[in-house]
Amino acid sequence: MNIKNKIEESVAEELKCFNDEFADALKSDTRRLQAAIDHIHQSSGKHIRPLLLLLTAKACGAVTEHSINAAVFLELLHTATLIHDDVVDETKQRRGVPSLNAVFDNRISVLVGDYVLSTALIRSIQTRDLRIIAIVSALGRDLADGEIKQLETAEESILDEACYLQVIKKKTAMLLSACTEVGAITSAASDDVVEICRSFGEYLGYAFQIKDDIFDYYFDANIGKPTGNDIREGKVTLPLLYALKHSKSEETDALLQIILNKDFTATNIDRLIAFAKAEGGIEYATQKMQYYHDKAIACLEQLPMSDAREALKLLFEYVIIRKK
Amino acid sequence: MNIKNKIEESVAEELKCFNDEFADALKSDTRRLQAAIDHIHQSSGKHIRPLLLLLTAKACGAVTEHSINAAVFLELLHTATLIHDDVVDETKQRRGVPSLNAVFDNRISVLVGDYVLSTALIRSIQTRDLRIIAIVSALGRDLADGEIKQLETAEESILDEACYLQVIKKKTAMLLSACTEVGAITSAASDDVVEICRSFGEYLGYAFQIKDDIFDYYFDANIGKPTGNDIREGKVTLPLLYALKHSKSEETDALLQIILNKDFTATNIDRLIAFAKAEGGIEYATQKMQYYHDKAIACLEQLPMSDAREALKLLFEYVIIRKK
Repeated sequence: MNIKNKIEESVAEELKCFNDEFADALKSDTRRLQAAIDHIHQSSGKHIRPLLLLLTAKACGAVTEHSINAAVFLELLHTATLIHDDVVDETKQRRGVPSLNAVFDNRISVLVGDYVLSTALIRSIQTRDLRIIAIVSALGRDLADGEIKQLETAEESILDEACYLQVIKKKTAMLLSACTEVGAITSAASDDVVEICRSFGEYLGYAFQIKDDIFDYYFDANIGKPTGNDIREGKVTLPLLYALKHSKSEETDALLQIILNKDFTATNIDRLIAFAKAEGGIEYATQKMQYYHDKAIACLEQLPMSDAREALKLLFEYVIIRKK
Repeated sequence: MNIKNKIEESVAEELKCFNDEFADALKSDTRRLQAAIDHIHQSSGKHIRPLLLLLTAKACGAVTEHSINAAVFLELLHTATLIHDDVVDETKQRRGVPSLNAVFDNRISVLVGDYVLSTALIRSIQTRDLRIIAIVSALGRDLADGEIKQLETAEESILDEACYLQVIKKKTAMLLSACTEVGAITSAASDDVVEICRSFGEYLGYAFQIKDDIFDYYFDANIGKPTGNDIREGKVTLPLLYALKHSKSEETDALLQIILNKDFTATNIDRLIAFAKAEGGIEYATQKMQYYHDKAIACLEQLPMSDAREALKLLFEYVIIRKK
């Protein structure tokens, strides 16, 4: 049994319910919209967020009907932001399949993203829980704000760790913390437990994004993008940020100039990646993930022992060690 | 006193409150986002929707704090859809000012639209009224669906009045009916009165869009677009739809071929416009507006006599006779 199967074991039945509901969540009698929806389902991802939500609900007591519904609308919200991100980043592939904007066009993709986002919000209202509705709508705003901040940071070549962490909080950590927070709420957990779960999700989110960013320093056919993609877009992520700040190398000033001038030739990108690695950037980023890991585990230790809780620990390990 | 001032008279104070709240509704510490927000306020429109909402609330009894809040979030929702529509239609000007996507770019515009849409939904939640929250989120979905249907109708050259009406219902009438429905709800109107107001708004919305579509058959520097813009995009609106269906002219088949082949040269657009006018298309569309007008007035007659009710009648007249 691989690690992913082991993590899923304690919510296997609930994941089946999720899959069925997710498959039915989007329907339209507008043919072009339905064609887009079919494409979305074909390129469906690993469903880490629903898994996280269901495990949290289980670790807090029980997965309810509202937990399944919440897993559906948070995955829809995530899907909507991916659709718009692909338009924004002009991404042509997503999970080895042509992206929606590549198959249809940007116009359809903008509108389909709006449609999926609104569908997510409509479903969140079905919980009739104003706390949940507020979390989901605030999330929509923060995800957009985070992406705009990322564009700004890249275009203005802002090289600052605090700013980097702020961006990944808004674009990634808040979605994962919403999953754990809502998961806890739907299992009727106490306010204290809800807050513990929210924090766990946030730490997981930071680690998840740092890991994603590390991939950019290594070639991996599985993620379908060449090394240095982020740098090419001006996104200076944690390993390179650290190296630029802490290196005593004489090369540093020249590399800073390359970034400020956005002189991202293939040779320069190779230099930047080699520099980040040589100057301990990957080790630093890995330590940072470990830091969030330890804080997250401390959160989980406050929950009663259960298979679901242990699966959440394993999920964090998986996020750190995954190869794609 | 011009007609617009006369309509506004009975909610003049409330409109001031709206203007203040709307100006404060969007704020961000992400500089690029704030710059986009400032641009949005510079190109702010006529605020027909807030006026409609406030007048409806007043005609049903009283404008409450929730009515003002609702006027703000529905105008925000409208603003968000305009931002995305300008990306979708590659519009470079909006109300005589460069559009957001022209000043910034499509990427920022997609994200700013998401941000404004989410802000609208967050504010709708502040009403803590699940009926209102449901109306607003369903609206987000229907507006996107309507725009996609419009793209589909244009690209596939679907020439059908029922289909045309379905598109304008989703892209325009539902927003105006949401304004009147929510306006009534926020003044604590009975369910019957809420439904009367909803219908009134829907009829107004149909007339509003038909009038907008008629503008495309006439040059008007004020609306900042040349005659025939819709046709050039393959959007066959009511006057031309009617003419193509009812004309006995021998020219009809040739004109149908032009549309099916999307052969929209300047000469051909002139021919199509001249044909729509000669074959009674404008008169037909005007009659249709009158049809909705009569139904709308019958709705209003069921409300008690008040200045606000009379102003709503005048607002419908204004929508039909306006020059831009």
